Amino acid sequence: MKLYIAPRAPNPRRVQIFIVEKGITGIEEIPVNLNALEHKTEAFRAKSPLARVPVLELDDGRPLGETRAICTYLEGTKPEPNLMGRDPTERAFIEMADRRVELYVMAPISNWVRHTHPGLAVLENPQFGEFGKSQSEKLQEALVWLDGALATQDYIAGDRFTIADITAFCGIEFARLMKFKPGEAGYPHLQAWRDRIAAKPSTQT
Amino acid sequence: MKLYIAPRAPNPRRVQIFIVEKGITGIEEIPVNLNALEHKTEAFRAKSPLARVPVLELDDGRPLGETRAICTYLEGTKPEPNLMGRDPTERAFIEMADRRVELYVMAPISNWVRHTHPGLAVLENPQFGEFGKSQSEKLQEALVWLDGALATQDYIAGDRFTIADITAFCGIEFARLMKFKPGEAGYPHLQAWRDRIAAKPSTQT
Repeated sequence: MKLYIAPRAPNPRRVQIFIVEKGITGIEEIPVNLNALEHKTEAFRAKSPLARVPVLELDDGRPLGETRAICTYLEGTKPEPNLMGRDPTERAFIEMADRRVELYVMAPISNWVRHTHPGLAVLENPQFGEFGKSQSEKLQEALVWLDGALATQDYIAGDRFTIADITAFCGIEFARLMKFKPGEAGYPHLQAWRDRIAAKPSTQT
Repeated sequence: MKLYIAPRAPNPRRVQIFIVEKGITGIEEIPVNLNALEHKTEAFRAKSPLARVPVLELDDGRPLGETRAICTYLEGTKPEPNLMGRDPTERAFIEMADRRVELYVMAPISNWVRHTHPGLAVLENPQFGEFGKSQSEKLQEALVWLDGALATQDYIAGDRFTIADITAFCGIEFARLMKFKPGEAGYPHLQAWRDRIAAKPSTQT
């Protein structure tokens, strides 16, 4: 299998961490240069019609896009260690947690970065600075919730490490482009959780 | 079980259609008045900390939030008719299709409506009109792709009706608030698909 990634982009990183956590080996990583708009070429759009990374090319040649869908596939190929739930009920509660950190933490962080950071002007065109700034304010409500949750549980979805921790970690780390650090912003439990995840071998790349 | 919904809101509608398609009965629907900000009350936040609908309250009292996570749970309770994939590989490809229409069709439509329609000013505060307008333009790339896909396949994820059709339908229908009709906008295959879905008993409510 081949995994099309973009160095430093948060969504490919989610899959890269997932693969290391699962102990899956033998997937070739192929970098796509976003700033050179390589993802918008006809060749890449044949694999990803809306020009998104990551894409996993299966051994039969089929391209599978969308971060979380790629993880669903990989979890099927190697169920343990389990990161997405062992039965439908656990799968649902982990998916709830994963969506919350994706939609209410990672998405506003992405909007904040993409609409206000000069380095993203090529990829987010046009940028709407005031909208981006307001997203950083909306983000705070989700961080208050998340910090409170992490005061009484070790991981995003409860008592064990799951895909939701990977999603939240890649989102929070992307905010470092905005000099954001949870502890300095008043979220000590989120900072402690972030430091635990940052110490894992899977997040060293 | 109890399902907390908001009349006419697209995300609760996704679950409502899913339930009818599955043939699941006996779930009590409880309306939440968004314009009265009932979702922001302490009582509702105990079920949904970030004040989102829908929420499914399980028989054991646990609140399960997030549209797609609720569907994952319900698919587990009643696997047939299958709407989310019968094995991990099929689940992954349907999830890919579902995410594409959620993130690249429904989300820009939501941003377009929420940031430009006067009726949404209470819920989306502040509104950023120019950003909203630009989202309607970004939407077109996804609609070109989707219209092209539906020229050669009957459903969003391929040859059978799945959760991805429900997501796309609720997104496209939400755009009616902006007087958007796929056929008039130059997407004839999307219009034909929309009309087939709109004729199903599950979408009559």
